[in-house]
Amino acid sequence: MLVRALRDAGAEVSWSGCNPLSTQDDVAAALADEGVSIYAWHGMNTEEFYWCIEKSLEFKPTLTLDDGADLIFTVHNKHKELADQVIGGTEETTTGVHRLRAMAADGKLRYPVIAVNDAETKWDFDNVYGTGQSSLDGILRAQNHPLGARNSVGRATATAGRAAACAPKGMGANVIATEVKATAALKATLEGIRVMPMDEAAKVGDIFITATGMKDIIVGKHFEVMRDGAIVCNTGHYDCEIDIEALEKMAVSKRQIRDSNEEYTMPDGRRIYVLAQGRLVNLAAAEGHPSEVMDMSFANQFLALKRLKDLHGELDNQVHMLPEEQDQEIAQIKLDTMGLGIDTLSEDQIKYATDYSAGT
Amino acid sequence: MLVRALRDAGAEVSWSGCNPLSTQDDVAAALADEGVSIYAWHGMNTEEFYWCIEKSLEFKPTLTLDDGADLIFTVHNKHKELADQVIGGTEETTTGVHRLRAMAADGKLRYPVIAVNDAETKWDFDNVYGTGQSSLDGILRAQNHPLGARNSVGRATATAGRAAACAPKGMGANVIATEVKATAALKATLEGIRVMPMDEAAKVGDIFITATGMKDIIVGKHFEVMRDGAIVCNTGHYDCEIDIEALEKMAVSKRQIRDSNEEYTMPDGRRIYVLAQGRLVNLAAAEGHPSEVMDMSFANQFLALKRLKDLHGELDNQVHMLPEEQDQEIAQIKLDTMGLGIDTLSEDQIKYATDYSAGT
Amino acid sequence: MLVRALRDAGAEVSWSGCNPLSTQDDVAAALADEGVSIYAWHGMNTEEFYWCIEKSLEFKPTLTLDDGADLIFTVHNKHKELADQVIGGTEETTTGVHRLRAMAADGKLRYPVIAVNDAETKWDFDNVYGTGQSSLDGILRAQNHPLGARNSVGRATATAGRAAACAPKGMGANVIATEVKATAALKATLEGIRVMPMDEAAKVGDIFITATGMKDIIVGKHFEVMRDGAIVCNTGHYDCEIDIEALEKMAVSKRQIRDSNEEYTMPDGRRIYVLAQGRLVNLAAAEGHPSEVMDMSFANQFLALKRLKDLHGELDNQVHMLPEEQDQEIAQIKLDTMGLGIDTLSEDQIKYATDYSAGT
Amino acid sequence: MLVRALRDAGAEVSWSGCNPLSTQDDVAAALADEGVSIYAWHGMNTEEFYWCIEKSLEFKPTLTLDDGADLIFTVHNKHKELADQVIGGTEETTTGVHRLRAMAADGKLRYPVIAVNDAETKWDFDNVYGTGQSSLDGILRAQNHPLGARNSVGRATATAGRAAACAPKGMGANVIATEVKATAALKATLEGIRVMPMDEAAKVGDIFITATGMKDIIVGKHFEVMRDGAIVCNTGHYDCEIDIEALEKMAVSKRQIRDSNEEYTMPDGRRIYVLAQGRLVNLAAAEGHPSEVMDMSFANQFLALKRLKDLHGELDNQVHMLPEEQDQEIAQIKLDTMGLGIDTLSEDQIKYATDYSAGT
Repeated sequence: MLVRALRDAGAEVSWSGCNPLSTQDDVAAALADEGVSIYAWHGMNTEEFYWCIEKSLEFKPTLTLDDGADLIFTVHNKHKELADQVIGGTEETTTGVHRLRAMAADGKLRYPVIAVNDAETKWDFDNVYGTGQSSLDGILRAQNHPLGARNSVGRATATAGRAAACAPKGMGANVIATEVKATAALKATLEGIRVMPMDEAAKVGDIFITATGMKDIIVGKHFEVMRDGAIVCNTGHYDCEIDIEALEKMAVSKRQIRDSNEEYTMPDGRRIYVLAQGRLVNLAAAEGHPSEVMDMSFANQFLALKRLKDLHGELDNQVHMLPEEQDQEIAQIKLDTMGLGIDTLSEDQIKYATDYSAGT
Repeated sequence: MLVRALRDAGAEVSWSGCNPLSTQDDVAAALADEGVSIYAWHGMNTEEFYWCIEKSLEFKPTLTLDDGADLIFTVHNKHKELADQVIGGTEETTTGVHRLRAMAADGKLRYPVIAVNDAETKWDFDNVYGTGQSSLDGILRAQNHPLGARNSVGRATATAGRAAACAPKGMGANVIATEVKATAALKATLEGIRVMPMDEAAKVGDIFITATGMKDIIVGKHFEVMRDGAIVCNTGHYDCEIDIEALEKMAVSKRQIRDSNEEYTMPDGRRIYVLAQGRLVNLAAAEGHPSEVMDMSFANQFLALKRLKDLHGELDNQVHMLPEEQDQEIAQIKLDTMGLGIDTLSEDQIKYATDYSAGT
Repeated sequence: MLVRALRDAGAEVSWSGCNPLSTQDDVAAALADEGVSIYAWHGMNTEEFYWCIEKSLEFKPTLTLDDGADLIFTVHNKHKELADQVIGGTEETTTGVHRLRAMAADGKLRYPVIAVNDAETKWDFDNVYGTGQSSLDGILRAQNHPLGARNSVGRATATAGRAAACAPKGMGANVIATEVKATAALKATLEGIRVMPMDEAAKVGDIFITATGMKDIIVGKHFEVMRDGAIVCNTGHYDCEIDIEALEKMAVSKRQIRDSNEEYTMPDGRRIYVLAQGRLVNLAAAEGHPSEVMDMSFANQFLALKRLKDLHGELDNQVHMLPEEQDQEIAQIKLDTMGLGIDTLSEDQIKYATDYSAGT
Repeated sequence: MLVRALRDAGAEVSWSGCNPLSTQDDVAAALADEGVSIYAWHGMNTEEFYWCIEKSLEFKPTLTLDDGADLIFTVHNKHKELADQVIGGTEETTTGVHRLRAMAADGKLRYPVIAVNDAETKWDFDNVYGTGQSSLDGILRAQNHPLGARNSVGRATATAGRAAACAPKGMGANVIATEVKATAALKATLEGIRVMPMDEAAKVGDIFITATGMKDIIVGKHFEVMRDGAIVCNTGHYDCEIDIEALEKMAVSKRQIRDSNEEYTMPDGRRIYVLAQGRLVNLAAAEGHPSEVMDMSFANQFLALKRLKDLHGELDNQVHMLPEEQDQEIAQIKLDTMGLGIDTLSEDQIKYATDYSAGT
């Protein structure tokens, strides 16, 4: 839909995947059939993944759109010559925005970037309701166990992580959060969620979900103490959150028991189940976010690219935010499609909100 | 506790109430007994309220601390001469901060202000968990009806409002939100809450809770269509959210049926119940926020005043934010007191978070 | 309301309280003013309590109505001569019904009893929603701490207990259930509630609520291991669930810090808070069940007494159930008053439900 | 597992499916490979379904085990000669038990039946947590829409129906219940669920789930008023709850948009989506109940067959209940496997529970 909208607005588009597992082949085929330049298929290896990015860059883009920042990093690290002609870029993920800010702070960013991720209508919807539902869907499909009566351990440094980690709560799981941010830990406890370090949680968890954008969340020492039957999965963008390599070395045997579900047997007989090889369980074992959630994220991507074009020459090489009014406009259109009405402030009320002329 | 902490840190303190109903007389008496200058008692009228503020200003403060901005507005509107010697001020409420920002934008603010309300450890805890629990407590005390099976209508333009409006959900109420902000309306629907304009909600609601910091949320046209037995209350700072005056004119009779609960009988026989005369139901009918929630708000107040003193001369006459590290420090101390541990990122992980040198 | 309804239906009524703390003096006074024979006031001692029962028995009743079975046991144990003229009795509580069944099994019951408690419109509403809300109300009033971030330990052998124990869940508490019934324990875990023996729960709980109808739920060994600041209360009918006597002996000092809240200091400095002296916290610290919940319980009481009269001579001296149709009739009337509609099965559908003539 | 347990206990087993869609072919093949007589495959037509039952009856069983009562009805309706040698039978479903009770009341039941469905460890677990999770799983797979912000309409005359209808609540749906039983309707409203007749709910629902064991729940008049985009599915045993035939006649076109998801376009352009052709969405679009839930149901089936054999000659031709102790024994074993402990009553406490010798 986003590709078609960009094309209908007059853009020429070349496209590659943002993750080896994120492409739906039928969608890619349909777009190719419409004449769109597409380099993407489901289940690429790393070499193929970067080959696709390289192919899409032969197009010599004037705007870049990223979900994970691999495209923009490739431009900056391997094709600096392309950067000069790029008007600007967008980035969809928390991790990508974080790294692009670090790059800008080092003076290394060669064109302005808009942090689509940071739009309220993106991160507070896509990252919460999209990730929550699609991760739960992936976990249900990959392992047909009840979630009730389970200790569900989530590690979540961003909104998406929390949503994914808490999704099983509605189905009767007892949720445990491990945290690195004190305010987030405190909020979790006030919602009835237990908080403890991963070293402790590893001993009591039944289902582990990582969604942090950070590496090495679940590592060897955690596998050592996990219960027999523990299930481990990741819904973060990259597959470095769970140290599968360590588990491979520790296990005495391994077998696939279902689609997206591998059983590792430890020397002491305990079995640990890894879903989707530690890759995004919501994409690999289910179908990703519902379109009703992606619509707002895509509206932000579209409007961000339009903004970069409209403000060509006016933005410096930093990571920029989208204006707050755009969030309200997108959300209002969404409410209209749902047939839901809200109130509006009267002139008198607006005046009251900023009135400092008198006391109360 | 805040007064004692300020005094122990070397401050001389003079104190007046922030609301005619917010003072606990025993606490005021205990502080007076310790020699603190206190002008406050429970149940003042408007004239007495401002007399107290005037009395506390005779003290000629060098720092002002506000919960509702009445003190700082009095300084600016009636005692401009005092403003010159004031190093800075703090403000606790969303509404107050909003108005002080408007004042600063007009160039009318005469000394720097720190928006204590905007600290994450204040608004995301005090406004959510404090207001939620204390409002529910007030409603339970003022009307002994079950919350289950009730349509609970909340109007909430800020966090505190949403919390208060949703508190009955845990007790089986079916929550309806009326909104003026499109993103907030959309989030509510994604949490299973119905969204509609107040004109519609007025017809189906059983319990109405306002907490907006805005006037005229529930007015005459709403009373006209409410169900027999509807209960109306407010947990916002000022008592202008519900148009009690309009109700007084419409009703044919009125009687107090319980503490903090008045029954208005309409010409057609319908009865509408107003809790605490439309004043803060959590303070007037219950005891306000638990101390375990106020501790973090007060830590922010204390540290904000210290910051104003430490940075004397360095801050311009604007509304300033507290540094984010202070939030994490306060939250960490709170977690420590609760015996809860969190994880810390390794050097390697911190490096990973900002690494843009290679692809994924 | 029940007294008035009985009187309006032609009964002569004499009334005493079912618990030393359960009488609201203003209600008793109003009834006395109407000429009803009332022997009850708030805060009686044990001697006064039984004196009131004796006084109400001077009336020589032909029907008895009990909430806790003290009246009927007094008739059987001390006034056997009265039993011969009694047509039948009713009992409102789980504990009372349990004991009356034991009495009947021993052939000691001298007249038929209807177990009002066992009507679905009583136990599945009064015991769940009434006890849940009123206990939470009592706990909020007696201790102004946040329930979020608390481990709330409930011991619950009956529905009412579970409801009271789980009520804090909606306010962010992490609920722990201790159980003696395996199926109940299993259901709790499937709802995300942790289950453990009281000996373990005593070490981690912040708020303890008993509601079992059983004695000695929280005893000396539990007080020995509780955390500093633990809060203990009971919402069961009798005050034997918490061994206050043991706590009195263990503590080095005791002081009342609020209404219905006493602080016991242990030799090692830990403080334990007991609400309402271990008596029903929902009655002693709040106002008991909302009338919208009691209405159905009272309808059952009324109809049970009418049934005993109508079937005089036909019922043997056992504990009898109310007919299931009465539940549906009461619930239907309640739905009607709430303006809620349900569907009805067509003739064709009713036939389908019992059709065994063919396969599917 | 159940087949293997029966065989290991010494039984000879012949097996056919209970529903055209409920067989997993790999499981059937594995059992056949072990020498078990199996007549079942996924996706049979009605003729094949009954052929399989006939084939399994050639085995001339002495015990029958049913899930839906098709086997036992076939014995009674077509093979009366077999009934004489049957010791007894079991039935797994609410509908089946209901019809068998009607048959027994008419004096038509030819051998004793045990209502496995009515064991607490069956209906209060399998029907609640099994159906809830597997139905949600099926709905997520068959339509990738968010459940948040949706009006989810459930019609539920039994526990399983309520569970399935409420499962979306945890994911942010606003749940509406349609009911035929007044007490169930009242409970739903006290849990914050809206109650209305299907004629009204049909106009506002986004997702409809039937699970009643009753026919004609959603019929032509409901399709006429549904919103564009409404999704309709069934998780009850038989496919007669949704009148697909009526929809076929009303629609101007029909196409399959995904696995288990057909779009019907109405004359006015509205689109209605039917999942799994109105057959059990949890089996047809997902994988049925998790094994951790079925284990207790199967334990009841096994012990019920053993009980029929042990009590051969002692039971009359009625529908019998399992003893309550069996529930507690099964639940206790389950808790043990989960490592969860509960308390036990002391002698003194047991005595207290039935003590009627004195007052309180």
